[in-house]
Amino acid sequence: MSPAVSGSARITALDVLDVRFPTSEHLDGSDAMNPEPDYSAAYVVLRTDAAGGGAEGHALAFTTGRGNDVQAAAIAALAPYVVGRPVAEVCGDLGGFARSLVHDPQLRWLGPEKGVIHMATGAVVNAAWDLTAKLAGKPVWRLLAEMPPEELVAQVDFRWLSDALTPEDALEILRRAEPGREERVARLLEHGYPAYTTTPGWLGYSDEKLARLAREAVGEGFTQIKLKVGASLEDDIRRMRTAREAVGDGIRIAVDANQRWDVRPAIDWMRALAPYDPYWIEEPTSPDDILGHAAIREALRPIRVATGEHIANRVVFKQLLQAGAVDVVQIDSARVGGVNENLAILLLAAKFGVPVCPHAGGVGLCEMVQHLSMFDFVAVSGTLEDRVIEYVDHLHEHFVDPVRVAGGHYLAPTRPGLGAQMRPGSLKEYAYPDGPVWSAR
Amino acid sequence: MSPAVSGSARITALDVLDVRFPTSEHLDGSDAMNPEPDYSAAYVVLRTDAAGGGAEGHALAFTTGRGNDVQAAAIAALAPYVVGRPVAEVCGDLGGFARSLVHDPQLRWLGPEKGVIHMATGAVVNAAWDLTAKLAGKPVWRLLAEMPPEELVAQVDFRWLSDALTPEDALEILRRAEPGREERVARLLEHGYPAYTTTPGWLGYSDEKLARLAREAVGEGFTQIKLKVGASLEDDIRRMRTAREAVGDGIRIAVDANQRWDVRPAIDWMRALAPYDPYWIEEPTSPDDILGHAAIREALRPIRVATGEHIANRVVFKQLLQAGAVDVVQIDSARVGGVNENLAILLLAAKFGVPVCPHAGGVGLCEMVQHLSMFDFVAVSGTLEDRVIEYVDHLHEHFVDPVRVAGGHYLAPTRPGLGAQMRPGSLKEYAYPDGPVWSAR
Repeated sequence: MSPAVSGSARITALDVLDVRFPTSEHLDGSDAMNPEPDYSAAYVVLRTDAAGGGAEGHALAFTTGRGNDVQAAAIAALAPYVVGRPVAEVCGDLGGFARSLVHDPQLRWLGPEKGVIHMATGAVVNAAWDLTAKLAGKPVWRLLAEMPPEELVAQVDFRWLSDALTPEDALEILRRAEPGREERVARLLEHGYPAYTTTPGWLGYSDEKLARLAREAVGEGFTQIKLKVGASLEDDIRRMRTAREAVGDGIRIAVDANQRWDVRPAIDWMRALAPYDPYWIEEPTSPDDILGHAAIREALRPIRVATGEHIANRVVFKQLLQAGAVDVVQIDSARVGGVNENLAILLLAAKFGVPVCPHAGGVGLCEMVQHLSMFDFVAVSGTLEDRVIEYVDHLHEHFVDPVRVAGGHYLAPTRPGLGAQMRPGSLKEYAYPDGPVWSAR
Repeated sequence: MSPAVSGSARITALDVLDVRFPTSEHLDGSDAMNPEPDYSAAYVVLRTDAAGGGAEGHALAFTTGRGNDVQAAAIAALAPYVVGRPVAEVCGDLGGFARSLVHDPQLRWLGPEKGVIHMATGAVVNAAWDLTAKLAGKPVWRLLAEMPPEELVAQVDFRWLSDALTPEDALEILRRAEPGREERVARLLEHGYPAYTTTPGWLGYSDEKLARLAREAVGEGFTQIKLKVGASLEDDIRRMRTAREAVGDGIRIAVDANQRWDVRPAIDWMRALAPYDPYWIEEPTSPDDILGHAAIREALRPIRVATGEHIANRVVFKQLLQAGAVDVVQIDSARVGGVNENLAILLLAAKFGVPVCPHAGGVGLCEMVQHLSMFDFVAVSGTLEDRVIEYVDHLHEHFVDPVRVAGGHYLAPTRPGLGAQMRPGSLKEYAYPDGPVWSAR
């Protein structure tokens, strides 16, 4: 915690904004389960009287349009748990703060720890991390990367994890990665973190656009691209062939079914795409189906199985790892209970030796999740091998500190915070339903 | 569908009410994870212009207090999907209606199929069943019990189920149970359906109250009672001994930890209670932990493992059955996507030969879920063996058609509908925050 915060500073308000982008008009973001998403944010601002009222925490829950108002209502329902609390208390014990929201005995009935109420918790917890990092004058990844192992362990809620990961396990993982932290920070600052791009592969795009964007991606330095699949097998075979011809053999092509299939159809469909060497199949079926993912992985080796953007919480990730159901853990910055629960998931993945390749895109997900992967490299897994962060090149212009991707790498953020703060103009312009973009429609 | 509905009749409104009961003041409903619940309902009314405007569908989502406003907001967000639709279309194809809500490509991001948005769907779907049954002049259990197998199969969303249950499997189960349907209806009308009672066992009660209520329960004809456990091992051993001494050896005593434990502590704690012959351990750990339940069951045999009231959807139930993780499936009328998804779960349980013993209590859960168990007996499992519906004797006075329990049995409801309709006076009195009960506090 920054010594700049006086003991009397308090969180004075929790503001919530409903912000939506009319992305459905261009079929950006279209996939087999989300044909016409309007990428949206239930946006939260924690206001304080610290630093003369200038210290704020910003974060958001991402949705695909309708229902963003419900998500905003859930965030607003957390205000009584936050407003009035001393800034030093919240920012000085973010683990305790996160647990106080997650374990509320009445609110937890709405999950428990899943869906709307859990994403609301995640948004508020992430806003508290943003605030803490800004007060400390550091980007979140560095704030985390400089914490001693004991302090990191204190961030994690180990409830329901102890059959797979104990605090002692976590401490051992973190201590093992302590040597070399500084070298890895330097490497990140110099080279950034590897990215892959989903930009070429949205379902709504023509074959020509797909091939052109795929070639451009390789030209820009990406070594992995991703295609959406699952609407039509015939189309997918043609698109996969088109993409493979466009990029050649040395580039990884992941495919993403967005939960479209049952277990057997997932296996059959992917066998039909196998000749084009898909690197991983993402979200082949229900995100709740641990045993289904295990069966699909077993049948499809060596094609990797990836999931995570809709995994509700650490207990489901724990089981995906226990069951050997995934080759790739895809954390999402805005689905689970915030930075703290994602630390638990990073530690679980490290315990099981499975690489973490975050889901991103949406609104602000790239901006936030890069901090978690960079921290993972510095202080948890200690490696970049087979690790890539998803990159989608839209909506970044609305952020105060947008991600910078160059040469197929995320450049390490240097500005204080978690990165989710949006430009005031964008918040006004895209406010739903009364902002000018929407009132004009 | 009732021929009384003209083709032009429409759903004219979806009204939502926030109704809360200050149950925390008496520690009714207290357990290891819910120390002070205020039992609440996010209550929905579908209004129509059928039958001169007199045809309505009532249902609710149950919560434990704070957050009931969020649940109500989620139900309200479904109004555009419902209002204006022809009554005959909705009531004539409830399976299609349920799928249209569950599969909305934008709203599903909020779950998918879990938590606040899924409970909202369940409430609206259940209200449509209530409306349909009232128009048909039948209680829901009889409406279901008289449907031909093909029509029942059409109610079910088989997405993500086909590795465990196909439409053909479902048809076979239902056809196998067709002979004897009428005899079982007659048996229900004469004898009712077995119940067990949780009334003696709330954590907040003294040992004396526990013993007295346990003896009274046996005197009233119950052959199974349930105790809340998980806060203090010492207390639990004493309470379990007290209860066993009060009821003798012939009565089943189930215990319920409300998710309090990790896997290993669950096993250790239950071994300490084993000398008092607990019949089942309910919710020993996270409702998301399929593999954890399987490990607990394996370690604790012959003590049965039960769960369900917080199981998010049919995909998790499927896996609990596939993994051999449960001896008892506890459906809940208001947690999943309504009657339709509960039909899927009843069919899954029948496929795996596992008895269904519903969770009830709360607000209106007894009133609703009895229909599902009675239907299960008549047309799915065909048996009452080891089947009991939970019974808790509070808040029934607020319902227009409250459950009737006598001699340890639920008497079969005969009035049309699903049973969740509350008295207008109660809806006003307990309206939150402006009803007289709350404005006086």
